[in-house]
Amino acid sequence: MGQIDDRLTALGIELPPEVVVPPDVVLPFAFVNVRGDRAIVSGHGPQAPDGTIAGPFGRVGQELTVEQGFASARLVALSILGSLQRELGSLDRITGWAKALGMVRCDADFQQHPAVINGFSNVIVEVFGPEIGRHARSAVGMSSLPFGMPVEIEAEVLIQT
Amino acid sequence: MGQIDDRLTALGIELPPEVVVPPDVVLPFAFVNVRGDRAIVSGHGPQAPDGTIAGPFGRVGQELTVEQGFASARLVALSILGSLQRELGSLDRITGWAKALGMVRCDADFQQHPAVINGFSNVIVEVFGPEIGRHARSAVGMSSLPFGMPVEIEAEVLIQT
Amino acid sequence: MGQIDDRLTALGIELPPEVVVPPDVVLPFAFVNVRGDRAIVSGHGPQAPDGTIAGPFGRVGQELTVEQGFASARLVALSILGSLQRELGSLDRITGWAKALGMVRCDADFQQHPAVINGFSNVIVEVFGPEIGRHARSAVGMSSLPFGMPVEIEAEVLIQT
Repeated sequence: MGQIDDRLTALGIELPPEVVVPPDVVLPFAFVNVRGDRAIVSGHGPQAPDGTIAGPFGRVGQELTVEQGFASARLVALSILGSLQRELGSLDRITGWAKALGMVRCDADFQQHPAVINGFSNVIVEVFGPEIGRHARSAVGMSSLPFGMPVEIEAEVLIQT
Repeated sequence: MGQIDDRLTALGIELPPEVVVPPDVVLPFAFVNVRGDRAIVSGHGPQAPDGTIAGPFGRVGQELTVEQGFASARLVALSILGSLQRELGSLDRITGWAKALGMVRCDADFQQHPAVINGFSNVIVEVFGPEIGRHARSAVGMSSLPFGMPVEIEAEVLIQT
Repeated sequence: MGQIDDRLTALGIELPPEVVVPPDVVLPFAFVNVRGDRAIVSGHGPQAPDGTIAGPFGRVGQELTVEQGFASARLVALSILGSLQRELGSLDRITGWAKALGMVRCDADFQQHPAVINGFSNVIVEVFGPEIGRHARSAVGMSSLPFGMPVEIEAEVLIQT
């Protein structure tokens, strides 16, 4: 495969298969929407190896620790990379990360959103390096997220056309 | 008018007039900001036929049902299409939808955000078809939204220059 | 310096230095990410003149008034302009504002998000004028934000390459 795929193998990272949603859920949009040289990534959650949405579920800082939120954000990164790989054919087509909006499910007093979303950012920089992996980012607190997921992240990358 | 306008007529969809905000509210920004081949759409809420913000107001899953949230998200789609039509002259200038961020006002236990924001996505795909209407999307839960609206959506489309 | 710098001086606006975060906080992303003709701005909070995150902290509408939220949003604008100036060399390189997502920390009943985020929008239009300063915007309510900040804003501008 490509250079990024080799890098994933070297890091021992395996990407999950297509997202498996509960049977009554309809998602009439594209997980990745390619328009010109932009690949716009829909909000993704953490995935288990079988493609389903991965637990643990709950609010970071309440039912879940910051470390569990970090681990969930790392799984979101892998879910996004899986969607990008399926849509683009190869992750080597990514010429630069643009941005990510990291959303953490938590209660009104939580303050450590950056420490949670670092689980995502660390993977991106580790896999793509400091130049291609460089991204703008926000890390903020949501009162709720679909399916009770603790983390949801949307993103945008630039690609070779 | 254009093809998309004909499609709206065929679907029996009428777009609302310019947003009418309460008299003491100042909004010093563009509802649609055209920059090059991008038309960036500010956060829109549901509109009544007279242009005012449409009720019902409240939190989806509490004061409002998921079905009411879905209906509200559909009105947000029409509000956005109205703003785009006024700014672009014709909706036929839209060459592709890029993304939408769908925000649902709800409490901490709500999990059906996708079912609510489908009220928006369904209109976009119905009116523009699967290729031009294809969009990336996130559907997330906000603790509050302006004016007590149950749904607010921001978006981006690509246009003919 | 440039025209925009002269305008800042004329308005009596001084931009803060680089963001100083608490010692145990790691932020592995770019405050401003330049990709082609786009400068994508990460979520910024209010800064004090010494670069640290500026108080007051709390929820707008609860511990803080709308006026304090407005003042905080104004400080966020200055923080973003400081980051853009450092990254771009000169704010004169900005050819047009694209968008801003204004996030207000507040409780479930708050409704005046636009009045808070106007503290940001007013600065942008005042400094850049109605054409370059024109931006799409959303103003929404978050249950929590990093460090207990009352306002966080992410944005995007277009630049001369």
